[in-house]
Amino acid sequence: MPVNLDLSPAIPVAGVELVTLSAGVKKDGSADLVLAKLAESATTSAVFTQSAFAAAPVIVCRNHLNENAGSVRALLINSGNANAGTGEPGLNMALGHCETVAEHLQVPTHSVLPFSTGVIGQLLPDDVMKAGIAKGASLLGEHDCTSDEHWQDAAQGIMTTDTQPKITSRQITGNDSLITITGMAKGAGMIQPNMATMLSYVFTDASISKADLDQLLLDAVDVSFNSITVDSDTSTNDSLVLSATAQGESMSPAHAQWGEFKSALIQVCLDLAQAIIRDAEGATKFITVNVNGGKTIDECKSVGYAIANSPLVKTAMFASDANVGRLLMAIGKAGVESLDASLITVSLGDVVAFEKAGIAPGYTEERGAAVMAADEIEVTVDLARGDAAASIYTSDLSHDYVSINADYRS
Amino acid sequence: MPVNLDLSPAIPVAGVELVTLSAGVKKDGSADLVLAKLAESATTSAVFTQSAFAAAPVIVCRNHLNENAGSVRALLINSGNANAGTGEPGLNMALGHCETVAEHLQVPTHSVLPFSTGVIGQLLPDDVMKAGIAKGASLLGEHDCTSDEHWQDAAQGIMTTDTQPKITSRQITGNDSLITITGMAKGAGMIQPNMATMLSYVFTDASISKADLDQLLLDAVDVSFNSITVDSDTSTNDSLVLSATAQGESMSPAHAQWGEFKSALIQVCLDLAQAIIRDAEGATKFITVNVNGGKTIDECKSVGYAIANSPLVKTAMFASDANVGRLLMAIGKAGVESLDASLITVSLGDVVAFEKAGIAPGYTEERGAAVMAADEIEVTVDLARGDAAASIYTSDLSHDYVSINADYRS
Repeated sequence: MPVNLDLSPAIPVAGVELVTLSAGVKKDGSADLVLAKLAESATTSAVFTQSAFAAAPVIVCRNHLNENAGSVRALLINSGNANAGTGEPGLNMALGHCETVAEHLQVPTHSVLPFSTGVIGQLLPDDVMKAGIAKGASLLGEHDCTSDEHWQDAAQGIMTTDTQPKITSRQITGNDSLITITGMAKGAGMIQPNMATMLSYVFTDASISKADLDQLLLDAVDVSFNSITVDSDTSTNDSLVLSATAQGESMSPAHAQWGEFKSALIQVCLDLAQAIIRDAEGATKFITVNVNGGKTIDECKSVGYAIANSPLVKTAMFASDANVGRLLMAIGKAGVESLDASLITVSLGDVVAFEKAGIAPGYTEERGAAVMAADEIEVTVDLARGDAAASIYTSDLSHDYVSINADYRS
Repeated sequence: MPVNLDLSPAIPVAGVELVTLSAGVKKDGSADLVLAKLAESATTSAVFTQSAFAAAPVIVCRNHLNENAGSVRALLINSGNANAGTGEPGLNMALGHCETVAEHLQVPTHSVLPFSTGVIGQLLPDDVMKAGIAKGASLLGEHDCTSDEHWQDAAQGIMTTDTQPKITSRQITGNDSLITITGMAKGAGMIQPNMATMLSYVFTDASISKADLDQLLLDAVDVSFNSITVDSDTSTNDSLVLSATAQGESMSPAHAQWGEFKSALIQVCLDLAQAIIRDAEGATKFITVNVNGGKTIDECKSVGYAIANSPLVKTAMFASDANVGRLLMAIGKAGVESLDASLITVSLGDVVAFEKAGIAPGYTEERGAAVMAADEIEVTVDLARGDAAASIYTSDLSHDYVSINADYRS
């Protein structure tokens, strides 16, 4: 059961057409192929997994983005098979599917980006994919594919073992128009059996230069998708795409509402990233780890991840156990240079639990336990050695996590 | 249930007297205090946790070793309370207990090393400790405390939630005498509720210079205690002590049997380190991850730890699931620079599962499953980019792990 997963309603973005179908990659007949057509005016940025075992579609995406300078016309997304660990045959297949899309939609091959999520180490069914692409392209040609329903279907079509689709929007008022930002994501915390994949697509109708879009994406991903963890395991297929379709107002750092626009974009990414944690496999708690007073954001993130990835902390969270000792242990192992443990303050919610190298005066197990009983828990660590801060979002480690991931592959 | 935990019998080392008693630190009345008296001729080296939250006894040990140049006369070990996160009062108490030992045994205070393991964040019961020390010292004075039984009792007395004591020996023949190495350890993989502590003590009757002993300890710890993981969580109290009591033959790198002696010492450390993994909480499998063909030992260890610490790999191991995709995922995230995924070979036992960027010819799920069904599993990764190699030892992630660590503290 997701933990308070409740996103604001999604609003379609002009310049994006979406078609979702059951091509037959998944054995159970559920939706497994999404084809998105973007306006010719669209500018696109993307970031990908840092894994040395990057999947075939990730390699093709990187090459195509180098060749097309951000002019992307189509996204091809399949669920049910990750096309990872598949070597040269998998690479040729991902490229071949882009060619098929390009022929049908009459766009350059390098303007097509492919994405796959699902089982690692198996080749995609080539004929099934090509037939699905042909069918999707003809639907795009014959119908208006821009309604609410098309967006909801796409969010559903990219799911693997997610229990709920994850799609949300924000709008801001520009100089003379409403600007919309809508994003969708899939992933139950990168912890699905053989489907270790996080995919996310964010669209806006604003017109934004490639350089501004690149920077915007890096700023947004840093505090959202690059601040979540379920189990420290990085997927071979992680991809995040940001497209500005240029159907609306031009936005740039010189625009009076740039700050507001950037905040709205970050909020969409943060909502989607947190939605992944809320839907993490076996999750019973949504945990925010705030680390303040660091010398750098990187060291704050190191401490945050040391806590968020610690199985001892995560099992204590599952048990609603106010186990301050385990938090100290995790801070101590984070590898922060010359960390002065005697300056550190640790709080559970608003309750100061540890300060001046000892249990805080007035702290009691009862006060800690009251904070831990909730399904949303905030842990705050003050390192007291600088002005940097970062927040990391995570789930607990429950019996259901073990059951789900110890199941034999189906 | 430990996985094949079967150590060779322990042999007492001359120059070491051991007394074990129930002082009353533990509420259940079981043994919780060990006092070891070392011959005046003994030389001692030690390594400690790298945690920024190093416990009070660790800080005192470091200071005393700086002052005494390796001339250690007594070890004071208590279980049931880690004296960690206890600030200045905890530090004063650890020092005070060393003074009590020094007075009773008529040795310098800085020749006494204190060790604690148990709950974090609570002060030790001062009177209980002092009374226990007095009783232990008088037993040492009145009785012969060098028998087999005294060694077995000590291995029992340092336990917390270990299911079995861990003590073992190796002997080699020197120029004119048998040289004995005996070590003991406690810890169920650094993953005990609030008792996140690994302690180990290794003794030999050889005579070894402080400089040679220091180097010997570093070499031995690197391939044993620094090559195990249950959950990536580093304790605030980890301590490993090596004492050469100089009751027997002189050993140095110039000695003809130095290589054999060093191998025997490493074997004692490796047996104890592996014993900790075999007794890890919830363990149903003992897993060896061999990484060969690396440029450096460090990068081999990075890949080994990425696999051994991955919750997805560990849950697959629990399920006896030959999930090669998860191994690739873990290798991919290990952060090895310029790793060429197309050169990597992954084997389960003797079965090659992945090579040349794809599933190996002739590999079948059935062949993988046959390897995974055993309670001891060997995974071998060949990075094919150098001559370095390392092995990491770990356990699986089971329901019992979650149950044990999600229990409320008692």
